[in-house]
Amino acid sequence: MRRGSDVFSTSRGTVSERGRNRSWLLSSIITFNVLILGIALVSGSVFNNVKINAINLQIFLIVLIILTTAWMLYYTIYTSREDHAVLYKDSHAGPVWLRGGLVLFGLCSLIMDVFKIANYVGYLHCDSAVKIAFPVVQAVFILVQTYFLWLHAKDCVQLQRNITRCGLMLTLSTNLMLWMAAVTEESIHQTVVPPEDDNSTHSYDIRAPGGSSSCNCSHSACAVLEKAYYYLYPFNIEYSLFASAMAYVMWKNVGRLVDEHNHHSLHFRLKDMLVGPAVGLVMLVAGLGTFVIYKVDVEKGDPGKRDTVLMIHYVMNTVAVTLMSVSTVAGCAIYRLDQRDHVSGKNPTRSLDVGLLIGASFGQFTICYFTIVAVVATGAEGHLNALNLAVSLLTVIQLCLQNIFIIEGLHREPFHEDMHQASVFTNPYVLQAQAHRDIHNLPGTFMETKTSPALTVHSMHVAPSAPSSSPLPQRHRLTWKRRALKEICAFLLLCNILLWIMPAFGARPQFDNTIGAEFYEFTMWAAVVNIGLPFGIFYRMHSVASLFEVFLTS
Amino acid sequence: MRRGSDVFSTSRGTVSERGRNRSWLLSSIITFNVLILGIALVSGSVFNNVKINAINLQIFLIVLIILTTAWMLYYTIYTSREDHAVLYKDSHAGPVWLRGGLVLFGLCSLIMDVFKIANYVGYLHCDSAVKIAFPVVQAVFILVQTYFLWLHAKDCVQLQRNITRCGLMLTLSTNLMLWMAAVTEESIHQTVVPPEDDNSTHSYDIRAPGGSSSCNCSHSACAVLEKAYYYLYPFNIEYSLFASAMAYVMWKNVGRLVDEHNHHSLHFRLKDMLVGPAVGLVMLVAGLGTFVIYKVDVEKGDPGKRDTVLMIHYVMNTVAVTLMSVSTVAGCAIYRLDQRDHVSGKNPTRSLDVGLLIGASFGQFTICYFTIVAVVATGAEGHLNALNLAVSLLTVIQLCLQNIFIIEGLHREPFHEDMHQASVFTNPYVLQAQAHRDIHNLPGTFMETKTSPALTVHSMHVAPSAPSSSPLPQRHRLTWKRRALKEICAFLLLCNILLWIMPAFGARPQFDNTIGAEFYEFTMWAAVVNIGLPFGIFYRMHSVASLFEVFLTS
Repeated sequence: MRRGSDVFSTSRGTVSERGRNRSWLLSSIITFNVLILGIALVSGSVFNNVKINAINLQIFLIVLIILTTAWMLYYTIYTSREDHAVLYKDSHAGPVWLRGGLVLFGLCSLIMDVFKIANYVGYLHCDSAVKIAFPVVQAVFILVQTYFLWLHAKDCVQLQRNITRCGLMLTLSTNLMLWMAAVTEESIHQTVVPPEDDNSTHSYDIRAPGGSSSCNCSHSACAVLEKAYYYLYPFNIEYSLFASAMAYVMWKNVGRLVDEHNHHSLHFRLKDMLVGPAVGLVMLVAGLGTFVIYKVDVEKGDPGKRDTVLMIHYVMNTVAVTLMSVSTVAGCAIYRLDQRDHVSGKNPTRSLDVGLLIGASFGQFTICYFTIVAVVATGAEGHLNALNLAVSLLTVIQLCLQNIFIIEGLHREPFHEDMHQASVFTNPYVLQAQAHRDIHNLPGTFMETKTSPALTVHSMHVAPSAPSSSPLPQRHRLTWKRRALKEICAFLLLCNILLWIMPAFGARPQFDNTIGAEFYEFTMWAAVVNIGLPFGIFYRMHSVASLFEVFLTS
Repeated sequence: MRRGSDVFSTSRGTVSERGRNRSWLLSSIITFNVLILGIALVSGSVFNNVKINAINLQIFLIVLIILTTAWMLYYTIYTSREDHAVLYKDSHAGPVWLRGGLVLFGLCSLIMDVFKIANYVGYLHCDSAVKIAFPVVQAVFILVQTYFLWLHAKDCVQLQRNITRCGLMLTLSTNLMLWMAAVTEESIHQTVVPPEDDNSTHSYDIRAPGGSSSCNCSHSACAVLEKAYYYLYPFNIEYSLFASAMAYVMWKNVGRLVDEHNHHSLHFRLKDMLVGPAVGLVMLVAGLGTFVIYKVDVEKGDPGKRDTVLMIHYVMNTVAVTLMSVSTVAGCAIYRLDQRDHVSGKNPTRSLDVGLLIGASFGQFTICYFTIVAVVATGAEGHLNALNLAVSLLTVIQLCLQNIFIIEGLHREPFHEDMHQASVFTNPYVLQAQAHRDIHNLPGTFMETKTSPALTVHSMHVAPSAPSSSPLPQRHRLTWKRRALKEICAFLLLCNILLWIMPAFGARPQFDNTIGAEFYEFTMWAAVVNIGLPFGIFYRMHSVASLFEVFLTS
């Protein structure tokens, strides 16, 4: 919505501006139509009794992929031949961790496609050849797209803007469609329909991956391959989202003229960090331990054991979410004390980050509130329900706090080490007194007492020997505020990884605890969880990336 | 998403700016939480077997309404006591037709509430008293809110910004919740569950308005009242949306400093219009005729007749949508010839208009694409399916074109009569020659030949006698471009009214034609239609309002 006004409010009626508005509208409308047609096809392939649409959907996807690949090849060749095709680059777009993640997830997706092809070869004698064609085409697409985005993610295109806008929107649509198809397949795979519903017509269609159940695999590796490639699904889902985000930022940057000023080179250093990463790692290991116990015991299907592992799972989550909330509150308090400027200037990458963060948290919020309503309405009897309620309430609080913390963090100017060192050089005793006052007057965050001796010593000894052009920047230690923020970011980052891994690799307490499916009906509850959870997983993933950025700028 | 960046990108780290960001975040988070909790309660009250939640939902709504009413009274009293409480007004916000519509729909909602109260009095001996409390509280709320918005819709609040931001977001949440509750109740009322599904557990809960079916009304007017108030639901739904839009614009305007320049007073004149309004009126009358036939014959339930009236309904829609598409293309062609500037500058009202237009068209798009997939996949056999497919395809095209036309129209500067008159005064013969050339060279829009003599005569006779300060502005006639645009707007406006009335008053060809419910399962199809259709209805409503604005500025 704001996007529209933003584009139009800067336009002043010149011909090129009007052309910009037109191609903006046109490319948006193309995306809109492709996506809605895609949603209809995906829904048709899931809910339809005839089952003809799974093939139709794949044909639709293949057509989209081929068109997008062709455009990306055309763009790459065109820009490499033309001199000065790309004069401007957006330094914020496509940071190295995003492109690195893209390559990593791309590799996993390629392995998944190889497994899929090997699996479908076994079904070739009795199933459609389209099912093999799809992973082949997808593998080529992943190779081309990763190459394309690696090279061109920072481009601010000036030539052939209309074609480029439409091409980028096509890329965006294709990736979102692939994401949607993968999420749907993954959700169906993870949803175990309760046995009492099996005779109704409303049961979900859990397809054997090779096709109809009367078709048997002709080689022995099928069962293993099938299991293996389902574990690679989360990476493929993330790959599509990464590519979508990068395509969107490129689209926003088409026709933009940027000056490459104030690009801070930020370094990742874990020195001086102790409490945050340590507690975070303990949480991560403990969480993964309970997750493994949970998966093993739930798969056995013993109802008594199920309640026990659900309890362990809820306790683990309660502890994690509570600690996260407490440290986020501490982080927000530090921001209030902090005098850093807010960043100004247009930055599509940051706008996208904030938007995705708020948008994706919607999924987790929805599941939590639905759980709260169900548990409260049925009276919240027993330990299990009480714990379930506690986890949901605490998660809601944690989500609100974390959103505030990350949004605040993304909008702060990075700390300028030079300025700070210069002031140290000028008058070390002022800073030293300042450090003392900070430590003794301010209400304590949790690592204050541990860091204070080191910090005070450091201020006295290092400061006079560290002028602005110091050859030893690595030895420059951090003020307590920066250090506390970094510790908090590291802790939150590791906890978000934990909360990402558990649902991404198949923890479904929402279905294992039957209260949701009993209170709402099963179809309704399955719809809420299967739409909300992918967004929740993405939210955790995206929080990890954003927290990493906040960590770097703090 | 862009909203966030917009707020932050202009902030420069001063204390008040930071306070602005905080209250922006806080009020957004409040809305977010209220809305998601509301969605959970609404879903619980619809899909839950226990039926305890309909009362819970109403209690939740009553609490929200009381809080909002209290805040609105506080704000009204505070601003009336404080001098200079409101220094700035946004001239674009709350135009008179919006406030007029608010009062009109508010009146209808009040009547609905009176009918509801009278109806529930009959059930008081055997049903919860909350059901009576709700319409009483709602009636008070409508009175207070209409008064509040009538007086304060243009305010750019400068004092107590944080409280005002939260209060306005609370108002927005309350209205959206009331809208959601009304839409749900209306949709359930309009959805007739097919009889073969009645034995399954997945049937919709069609509640008797007074409560459980064992509770009988104690007075005789119940049946009539019930029918009557369901006809008033569409107005109540629109009232909530109008109020939401106005609250959102007020929220965006909090803390804004605007200068009241370039406020054009635009007059509504139907003089010189002929073809557009005439054809539009014919369409409207014919459409309403077929709609009445449709409603009467569908309620009889005869399958043979049903096919006939469905056919008539589809033919009517095909004709309307085709004519609309053709005239929209003509309108877009005129825009390409037109040399008017695009408007610049920030304007929350326009941004909201564009956003709502694009967002609301999503509902109609979804239904169309789902229909297309279902019809194509089943082979599109028979006249009925072919017509259904044609209507859906043409509607998709019409929606795309209309969005482009309206967005272009909203971003053009209004025609400046003064400037134009001045140029006429300076050199009438140039304009006259221009008018001649326009008429003879340009590829014809459909009213060209009719308008040319009047226009030419006018240019020659009126022009020299109409200087800039003419006391007879009413006699100033329009150029052919302006006139054509006005005719097109008038025609589209009337057609959109037709396409609004039919679904708003209960035409449900999506359910009467069983192909959707057969292809997708009934629950899935009902969800798609019941979520998509309210947005579709709102889209038509909103298009009418936007087209009226385009009509005025053309």
